[in-house]
Amino acid sequence: MIMDTTSLPKSTSVALFPASFDPVTNGHLDIIYRALRIFDRVVIGVAVNIAKTGAFSVEERIEMLELAIGHEERVEITTFDDLTVDFATRVGANVLLRGVRAMSDFEYEFEMALMNKHLKPEIETVFLMSRQEYLYVSSSRLKELVRFGREVGEFVPTHVAKKLREALGSS
Amino acid sequence: MIMDTTSLPKSTSVALFPASFDPVTNGHLDIIYRALRIFDRVVIGVAVNIAKTGAFSVEERIEMLELAIGHEERVEITTFDDLTVDFATRVGANVLLRGVRAMSDFEYEFEMALMNKHLKPEIETVFLMSRQEYLYVSSSRLKELVRFGREVGEFVPTHVAKKLREALGSS
Amino acid sequence: MIMDTTSLPKSTSVALFPASFDPVTNGHLDIIYRALRIFDRVVIGVAVNIAKTGAFSVEERIEMLELAIGHEERVEITTFDDLTVDFATRVGANVLLRGVRAMSDFEYEFEMALMNKHLKPEIETVFLMSRQEYLYVSSSRLKELVRFGREVGEFVPTHVAKKLREALGSS
Amino acid sequence: MIMDTTSLPKSTSVALFPASFDPVTNGHLDIIYRALRIFDRVVIGVAVNIAKTGAFSVEERIEMLELAIGHEERVEITTFDDLTVDFATRVGANVLLRGVRAMSDFEYEFEMALMNKHLKPEIETVFLMSRQEYLYVSSSRLKELVRFGREVGEFVPTHVAKKLREALGSS
Amino acid sequence: MIMDTTSLPKSTSVALFPASFDPVTNGHLDIIYRALRIFDRVVIGVAVNIAKTGAFSVEERIEMLELAIGHEERVEITTFDDLTVDFATRVGANVLLRGVRAMSDFEYEFEMALMNKHLKPEIETVFLMSRQEYLYVSSSRLKELVRFGREVGEFVPTHVAKKLREALGSS
Amino acid sequence: MIMDTTSLPKSTSVALFPASFDPVTNGHLDIIYRALRIFDRVVIGVAVNIAKTGAFSVEERIEMLELAIGHEERVEITTFDDLTVDFATRVGANVLLRGVRAMSDFEYEFEMALMNKHLKPEIETVFLMSRQEYLYVSSSRLKELVRFGREVGEFVPTHVAKKLREALGSS
Repeated sequence: MIMDTTSLPKSTSVALFPASFDPVTNGHLDIIYRALRIFDRVVIGVAVNIAKTGAFSVEERIEMLELAIGHEERVEITTFDDLTVDFATRVGANVLLRGVRAMSDFEYEFEMALMNKHLKPEIETVFLMSRQEYLYVSSSRLKELVRFGREVGEFVPTHVAKKLREALGSS
Repeated sequence: MIMDTTSLPKSTSVALFPASFDPVTNGHLDIIYRALRIFDRVVIGVAVNIAKTGAFSVEERIEMLELAIGHEERVEITTFDDLTVDFATRVGANVLLRGVRAMSDFEYEFEMALMNKHLKPEIETVFLMSRQEYLYVSSSRLKELVRFGREVGEFVPTHVAKKLREALGSS
Repeated sequence: MIMDTTSLPKSTSVALFPASFDPVTNGHLDIIYRALRIFDRVVIGVAVNIAKTGAFSVEERIEMLELAIGHEERVEITTFDDLTVDFATRVGANVLLRGVRAMSDFEYEFEMALMNKHLKPEIETVFLMSRQEYLYVSSSRLKELVRFGREVGEFVPTHVAKKLREALGSS
Repeated sequence: MIMDTTSLPKSTSVALFPASFDPVTNGHLDIIYRALRIFDRVVIGVAVNIAKTGAFSVEERIEMLELAIGHEERVEITTFDDLTVDFATRVGANVLLRGVRAMSDFEYEFEMALMNKHLKPEIETVFLMSRQEYLYVSSSRLKELVRFGREVGEFVPTHVAKKLREALGSS
Repeated sequence: MIMDTTSLPKSTSVALFPASFDPVTNGHLDIIYRALRIFDRVVIGVAVNIAKTGAFSVEERIEMLELAIGHEERVEITTFDDLTVDFATRVGANVLLRGVRAMSDFEYEFEMALMNKHLKPEIETVFLMSRQEYLYVSSSRLKELVRFGREVGEFVPTHVAKKLREALGSS
Repeated sequence: MIMDTTSLPKSTSVALFPASFDPVTNGHLDIIYRALRIFDRVVIGVAVNIAKTGAFSVEERIEMLELAIGHEERVEITTFDDLTVDFATRVGANVLLRGVRAMSDFEYEFEMALMNKHLKPEIETVFLMSRQEYLYVSSSRLKELVRFGREVGEFVPTHVAKKLREALGSS
């Protein structure tokens, strides 16, 4: 362990929140708002390569994110198609922000964080835990609910609920 | 979910790192240095009530911490004897910093984080994962090694290794 | 917590056991027999939408279930193509019955149970644990064994073993 | 697997809910009320041997339980000092009722359930999952909160909160 | 990764099985017999320091082990009071043998194995999984059963069952 | 538990290490070298049926394995297309060797080991834990890194890194 003998200077904290956002949920937004309270900036990164098989196009995902959180000055919404840590470097992020909902999430995140620490030691992976009311809310589960004709207005912003109904709802 | 219509202002980020530090390890110090890169200030809180049954007195723990990390300007070392979230409020912390070493740690932390979120919604619990070389390094395991006559100089600062030998080492 | 001031009346207990049953195993049957001892009725629900990609058609699954357990008066075998909790309401079930074989099962079940409790608070998810001799017996693993020419007669009823051999066994 | 050729008769379902109840929480009461909806009777068993080291005497625990749930006709409150499955037989219970709050709970419960199934195959262990708002509520955590001067009125009945303050609260 | 260019010679495999054996169970014996099939020798190490708080003295534990497995020529039974890896070196063991019963066991073992690999890279920790019928059989659980007047003859050798009754059984 | 009254003879220990090896990593090689220290022979089995959807053909995988470990006299490299335990019998293996990287690996391995023990009680599944520096190294993760233009030379032998670049690297 090599320790500094002079004081470590504080740099601006920029948190990258990478996900597929297909679509953005209140669970995502909750993590973003909580991150805004403790980091200087939050970059929302929509993963393009995973996006190809989703319910919404990348453009639609960006649009829904813009409507939901675009008014926040310290938030930037963008897409990426490279390795997450390389994307982080590109946008000047020193924090990888991950929301954890369950033990099984954490297992996967644990391995990814070790690998990312190895690839870019200067980037910190930081975990925030989902609020208890969003513990069981994932984009994929919400899409399943909509396919079965269920309302999901309490789990996503109003405009996202509408888009979900249009895209997946049984007529 | 109630969302802000105006932009959320950024406040100073103060992270509280509460533990028994009996004694401080390189694993602790690693978490603290990583936190210093992303938060404005880090408050190290030595839990007094748990401290009673440890290998070192609260004064000794503070002293070892001071020697190890006291030179950092943005670090404050203190003790506490109340509920962690109340202590956080008292020192103006908006982040509870937790280092996670293993799945079993996380299980306990998960429940504590939900309870703390309920008690003080304005405080965020933030998890950093232990570096891979410290995944198996805990204060209690190091004390066991010292009791069996083992050197632990690679896992703690030099002055802590010396103190451990004096307190627990077989002569 | 709102508590009743008068005594809660006991209603008939109807347990819904939803699965793909592709095909029914002794593990399933064990859960059903144990459920029959504690609940008034058990409804077996074959999930139609998942059924499309299985080894057997929905009709074949129903047939195998009928042969295995159809003689039980308090058992009803049916199919469903809607959300599980909606199906439960439709058949008058107040219990969702789940068999748990392993920790990883439980993780997924945990999230589903929280979501289902939210969607229909009046329906209880109840977990029964697999008997130790069925801890490693799943429909998919049995199909793999049959594909490799193995006998699985100890894990499924005789008529199911025969059907499995016909459908998957190498000649 | 030996299967019945005649229909299995339905017996009365009596669920035993064994715990230390030191003291009863809303989490316990929630499990009991949910059990009352699906079982014919619920026996609450206060474990005497574990009780010796708690915050309350067995008498106090019984008293708090009586006040909280004693008005329910189908509930019986009692103590036991033998093996849980033997106690179950003694009170005519065919169900062991367990509330699960977290994965770590489940791990322990899993082993106990396998052992109990071996000791008394005719008794079923049935798991109900804690409601999301009680996921982090345990008797021991509540006692810790009270010791630190915190109000716990939202997690226990009013009379239990008062008793906790008297027994543990700092004056 | 440094790889050998000449062929690695095979050394004798000596497996150390360290535990408290308070008392030895059929689960332990099963692990030992399985180890004897794949390793050249098995050393059974009774941990002395943990032994102080058990139900049996170190001498009694050794005696019960001798009666149960002492006739096996390739088995050695001994005690130790140092760090497990140091003990391993002392008896010439290159394998640390661990029986795993459950996920929670494994969690702890995982950390210990990483630490032991660090302390002595030349010693391999090897895990064998408990047979399904012993998944829930631990010395501590058996002692609890005996205290409640239960027979445990199916889980331990006959002479151990007798000793357990004498030591813990209610008269 | 039936115990032998005469001493159990020691047989040659032959460990089968079955995987897809698409491609072989330093993590695999580490497990193989450690196994060579404690077992008489190690058989590397490339699973053919899983191989069909990988990045490399079975021939390429074998070739990379030969170059990496073929010089070891006690190692045999082969392919298989039957049930793992049947393959083990065919090559005279009495040990199934599994490397475990994480808890989630172990969960799956646990069930497989119970099933394999049931199918062939004479074959022991033995777990070795990944070295801490390979905890996050899997073939699939390495392929992802290469697709994003990353060097993986520290995680695989040089000739494997070259093959990976040729097969997956963006030009």
